[in-house]
Amino acid sequence: MIEIPDDHPRAESLRIRHVMEKGYMNRIVALAGLIAHGRGEAFDYIIGEKTTPPALKSIEAALSMIKLAKYPVFSINGNTAALAPNEIVKFAEISGIKLEINLFYRTEERIQAIKKHLLDVGAKELFGISDRKAQIQELSSNRRFVDKDGILKSDVILVPLEDGDRTEALRKMGKIVIAIDLNPLSRTAQWANITIVDNFLRVIKLFIEKWPDIEKKSESELKQIVRNFDNKENLREMIKYSIDYLNKISNKGIYIDEVLNFGYKIRI
Amino acid sequence: MIEIPDDHPRAESLRIRHVMEKGYMNRIVALAGLIAHGRGEAFDYIIGEKTTPPALKSIEAALSMIKLAKYPVFSINGNTAALAPNEIVKFAEISGIKLEINLFYRTEERIQAIKKHLLDVGAKELFGISDRKAQIQELSSNRRFVDKDGILKSDVILVPLEDGDRTEALRKMGKIVIAIDLNPLSRTAQWANITIVDNFLRVIKLFIEKWPDIEKKSESELKQIVRNFDNKENLREMIKYSIDYLNKISNKGIYIDEVLNFGYKIRI
Repeated sequence: MIEIPDDHPRAESLRIRHVMEKGYMNRIVALAGLIAHGRGEAFDYIIGEKTTPPALKSIEAALSMIKLAKYPVFSINGNTAALAPNEIVKFAEISGIKLEINLFYRTEERIQAIKKHLLDVGAKELFGISDRKAQIQELSSNRRFVDKDGILKSDVILVPLEDGDRTEALRKMGKIVIAIDLNPLSRTAQWANITIVDNFLRVIKLFIEKWPDIEKKSESELKQIVRNFDNKENLREMIKYSIDYLNKISNKGIYIDEVLNFGYKIRI
Repeated sequence: MIEIPDDHPRAESLRIRHVMEKGYMNRIVALAGLIAHGRGEAFDYIIGEKTTPPALKSIEAALSMIKLAKYPVFSINGNTAALAPNEIVKFAEISGIKLEINLFYRTEERIQAIKKHLLDVGAKELFGISDRKAQIQELSSNRRFVDKDGILKSDVILVPLEDGDRTEALRKMGKIVIAIDLNPLSRTAQWANITIVDNFLRVIKLFIEKWPDIEKKSESELKQIVRNFDNKENLREMIKYSIDYLNKISNKGIYIDEVLNFGYKIRI
């Protein structure tokens, strides 16, 4: 692995990239997962790499729904496990959400690597790792396999960085789906009941931070939060947020003063 | 490698991803290159995955500039070599542009793999592969190494999918830089003299297709095209293009009719 120059203007983003690359080296992340991470980087870029007000609203609705759920399950894939193993385990611990390892590129080697990665940071119970599997008939990909005591039994599923086909199939099975997806146009973002358009790492940290407030609320308050949440309206606001961000920049075209001072026009 | 289900709505995009994954397996593409490919996918998505009218304008200016150049050099990295080796070699053949392998994550193994990959499809001359190297003092990354008979000697450099630091350094050395970058906000897009905001694979195919028209033009016609091109204005138009695309969708929020018919609201 090559050293990141300290003067690189995107050093922080590069450091997270290296966490993902290390995840691949440890068999946790799939090659396609690295490409997916890049897509996320780009969508994060056009919201200014910050949690936006509409994202905060969807986070509150998501946590309320998880608190109201009888059997909530958190679907873990390679990227999420690599990015925030401690936070995933911590959130499961405080909220009681079940953890199921569920992979698009499912191999026994990756399942075992992710299992070890999560057990190492203190995970107590993990679904999706034994041969207790059932099939979701609607899907043709490998993720048709779900644990019969995990996702199959759940009423509410938290799916970060998920495949669109699968989100659709889960909805059609009658599940309530909460997605974390930086792309508000993705089929997952569209099919979910509650879509959090934000960076997974920021979201899981906010989940932990905000959980005590959620625990203080009454059932009727939580239900009111969920009923008042409109995913369609929220997605509209999220996309508007990117538009406003791009608008600010597009008025200038070239917005880096040093470039304008140095000049870009070709004199021939 | 897992089969792509035929009913997957993004099968074509998945197939290109697999070309990149194969590129990694063959030591051509770096892990960071896979993440960069993902960023490109996202930015391509918000221009509708098509070459836009402002991109066509920048392509014409770029080809005119290459034709006018005394010593144009095409800087090849792992991603470009993996994506379009035939097209790169074909364009070099018809335009006379020199090919230099120039990597951010430079290892001898990758240089050799890319060299073989390009020689296999008929590349005649490749720079950046021997020990004839010079340093660009402004840079702290490994890409300070450039070939003294390649980029160092060039007047015009074509840099697809380039690092921002390097584009800045090349400009400060007095080079004319043509960038191909799907992110109109990137430092490369901003520092280049001519920025083509489009998918590299589409661009290189258009380069080959449009070259005969460029060859028919007189020197004064070509100069006029370059003088009339304003990168600032072009970047502004490109960003506006994404804004219009997002605006169309944001008015709906949820834009997939099947989702609206099926319902997304939680009844509790």
